[in-house]
Amino acid sequence: MLLNCDLGESFGAWEMGLDAEVMPHIDMANIACGFHAGDPSVLAATLKLAKQHQVTVGAHPSYPDLQGFGRRSLNMSKQELIHCVHYQIAAIEGMAKVEGVSLSYVKPHGALYNDMMRNEEILLTLLEALSSYPTKLKLMILATANAEHHKTLATQYGVSLLMEAFADRLYTDEGLLTPRNQPNAVHNEIKLIEQVQQLTKTSSVITAGGNKLCLPADTLCVHGDNQAAVAQIKKIKAMISIDN
Amino acid sequence: MLLNCDLGESFGAWEMGLDAEVMPHIDMANIACGFHAGDPSVLAATLKLAKQHQVTVGAHPSYPDLQGFGRRSLNMSKQELIHCVHYQIAAIEGMAKVEGVSLSYVKPHGALYNDMMRNEEILLTLLEALSSYPTKLKLMILATANAEHHKTLATQYGVSLLMEAFADRLYTDEGLLTPRNQPNAVHNEIKLIEQVQQLTKTSSVITAGGNKLCLPADTLCVHGDNQAAVAQIKKIKAMISIDN
Amino acid sequence: MLLNCDLGESFGAWEMGLDAEVMPHIDMANIACGFHAGDPSVLAATLKLAKQHQVTVGAHPSYPDLQGFGRRSLNMSKQELIHCVHYQIAAIEGMAKVEGVSLSYVKPHGALYNDMMRNEEILLTLLEALSSYPTKLKLMILATANAEHHKTLATQYGVSLLMEAFADRLYTDEGLLTPRNQPNAVHNEIKLIEQVQQLTKTSSVITAGGNKLCLPADTLCVHGDNQAAVAQIKKIKAMISIDN
Amino acid sequence: MLLNCDLGESFGAWEMGLDAEVMPHIDMANIACGFHAGDPSVLAATLKLAKQHQVTVGAHPSYPDLQGFGRRSLNMSKQELIHCVHYQIAAIEGMAKVEGVSLSYVKPHGALYNDMMRNEEILLTLLEALSSYPTKLKLMILATANAEHHKTLATQYGVSLLMEAFADRLYTDEGLLTPRNQPNAVHNEIKLIEQVQQLTKTSSVITAGGNKLCLPADTLCVHGDNQAAVAQIKKIKAMISIDN
Repeated sequence: MLLNCDLGESFGAWEMGLDAEVMPHIDMANIACGFHAGDPSVLAATLKLAKQHQVTVGAHPSYPDLQGFGRRSLNMSKQELIHCVHYQIAAIEGMAKVEGVSLSYVKPHGALYNDMMRNEEILLTLLEALSSYPTKLKLMILATANAEHHKTLATQYGVSLLMEAFADRLYTDEGLLTPRNQPNAVHNEIKLIEQVQQLTKTSSVITAGGNKLCLPADTLCVHGDNQAAVAQIKKIKAMISIDN
Repeated sequence: MLLNCDLGESFGAWEMGLDAEVMPHIDMANIACGFHAGDPSVLAATLKLAKQHQVTVGAHPSYPDLQGFGRRSLNMSKQELIHCVHYQIAAIEGMAKVEGVSLSYVKPHGALYNDMMRNEEILLTLLEALSSYPTKLKLMILATANAEHHKTLATQYGVSLLMEAFADRLYTDEGLLTPRNQPNAVHNEIKLIEQVQQLTKTSSVITAGGNKLCLPADTLCVHGDNQAAVAQIKKIKAMISIDN
Repeated sequence: MLLNCDLGESFGAWEMGLDAEVMPHIDMANIACGFHAGDPSVLAATLKLAKQHQVTVGAHPSYPDLQGFGRRSLNMSKQELIHCVHYQIAAIEGMAKVEGVSLSYVKPHGALYNDMMRNEEILLTLLEALSSYPTKLKLMILATANAEHHKTLATQYGVSLLMEAFADRLYTDEGLLTPRNQPNAVHNEIKLIEQVQQLTKTSSVITAGGNKLCLPADTLCVHGDNQAAVAQIKKIKAMISIDN
Repeated sequence: MLLNCDLGESFGAWEMGLDAEVMPHIDMANIACGFHAGDPSVLAATLKLAKQHQVTVGAHPSYPDLQGFGRRSLNMSKQELIHCVHYQIAAIEGMAKVEGVSLSYVKPHGALYNDMMRNEEILLTLLEALSSYPTKLKLMILATANAEHHKTLATQYGVSLLMEAFADRLYTDEGLLTPRNQPNAVHNEIKLIEQVQQLTKTSSVITAGGNKLCLPADTLCVHGDNQAAVAQIKKIKAMISIDN
């Protein structure tokens, strides 16, 4: 079970995330591409850090919306979205090559990620974008009860999927994330540890309704916003390593 | 003598330049990369057009300044400028690959071009940017009386130069362009034709002071802003073809 | 019946609209505020032109989206939208004062306008924005079969409405605009003239279904994109003047 | 001696500065206007905070450069700069009115501030911008040995100046700030306290060369970046209050 984390989300004079402290403990870095965060200098610094710690690099493209940090849906046409994603992937891939690093996958950011999971048309548009991009890149999506259907769609586009699960979020009975504004949406540390153990040992979670839901995942999403989050990453990393 | 032209300078709903009419008559397209003009969809359309007419593709990176169209100097640090240029080159290179096209060279835009010709530190920064970029790309600069010195500098960075001359501009005795706000800075059609013939046949121009200045150039810069400009491109193209 | 037109939609080096040719023939200028078009210098120039021709000035605020020209819905929170609209109104109002001109009304642009007409929550948010702004400003919306309901809502916020009709667009039986991608959505000149005459004389239109729909309007929306559009404005203006 | 501080420099998801902790202890808030920092929602929140603590509000306009945080000179034309400053002042003034607050002064930000102090043409452009703005606003500049000359210039434009001094910076013999990259440029706390006492009691500082320089100042610039900075503000405030 690999750990992935959003990184490179500073912009100009504004710092966000403890990238240097997080990088040594994760396996996959989802790096912002400049459209919701991450100016060219931040991109270069984050790629250097990923190289230093031999972390796999993924593009973290977004709707173009710095002020909204990519968290607001933007009603782009299909072609606009494809070009917008190609541009961001291309930018980070070339800059990664400057640092001697290869780009491996794409994880859409924020509202684009949510729209992809809610609206199959957006998922198909992203699959088409990856399918028409010359470098073979995997697409990271949320592991849900629909995972098999999603894999079938991806196969039609010749794209491989990476399924991610969340350590700290309560799943609904449908296998989606309970929205953050609802009670118990975010686990306390005890529940988080239980969920990580269950995910790694039995590829399942206990849902809000108390059911056991099968949820095979390739990677766990972790956060590096502050010291508490970094401490949590270390704990999860240690737990996973022992299990292996 | 190859013809190069700035293209892909529309942005969103704003159109600029007669790209579709210009492309069939030129050899090299300097394509905006999104920082002074050229959003991702414009980039894709321009690259398709270049491919269709088998035109060599160059990146046309700029200071980040949409409102100023890259025509205002921005006092970036050396590292900021390198990352800014890498990002733009990478974006267009990847998008070019989507269209099955290779990126061949870089021509800085607007204020960045002028700063490069006026300030050797900026030229060296751009050479360093190209030198550290994994794809071997040529740098297009203005052919001046300093051409040999510029070539020596470029060689130290392992970068090849493309020297460009202007068909429609009066040269100073020092081999620079007479600023546009001065009288006679821009040639009428008769003088333009004379200058093109002299450049192609004897690699020289007659300067403002009436002197003959040796100016070996690889390419002539032409403009595609309006119908008159397109007509001029066709005339120059015909003239050069006959000479060859 | 007053004529209103979107103006000030150039940006930096990109020109859009024949503002100088349109301004003498209209009564109300909806001026872009910098978020979809109209940089500060364009704003100043457009305001000067409005003053010169004694045209009433309105703010034309938008979602923040230069690349999409404000034509793509952006899912902003209520408070974000209020602040976003306040900022734009404030910017143009202060710049108008510099030119000795007063701001009179607000016409939302593009996707924000469409969202306002489709989604009552957005309309209420805009009414709240105008209600909390210290200068009393009218809100321009589309005259539809719902006009009386909209007036009731506006009255609750202490905001006056300006109802606008379109000269060149076919109305649905529900009193909305037939989407542009449908056949007959945009009138030819004969139908346009008939519609203007009917709107000015009987405050009604003939809908797509052939019904007569009562549509009292304060103002007609005209366009100034090109010479043909300007010629049309002059014709409409002449027709209205004769009627008066 | 009034304390002024730069505030409202967060942007979207990026936070900067401890505005809520600083505001109770200062007299004048220089509030970012959206061009280097401060989106419309940040502006609204900062203005509310200023009102709550009865702090005088100033506009803190900048070159348009989010990525560079307004710290990079941009070569704007005189008219572009005037419109750019008008737009920002207008935006904050209108939003201040929404909160029931008046705008009192303008302090240019970052590179624009430095350019204003180095280049008299920029200072004159800013004076012209304030002179042509309908609300009478003071201009805050650095108190230097040239203060009398600056006041004479301002008087010609009908603009009043606010002279600011720095508590924590070593002055050169010419009355300018020692650049931050030089040793001793920033005072330790002992020297800072001495400088504040000297500024408030005798309107003078001891320069790098050990000379006493007369430097009458209306206001002291303080910083609110972190807890240490806030603690320093409280100390300075206490010291000034005792002196009065």
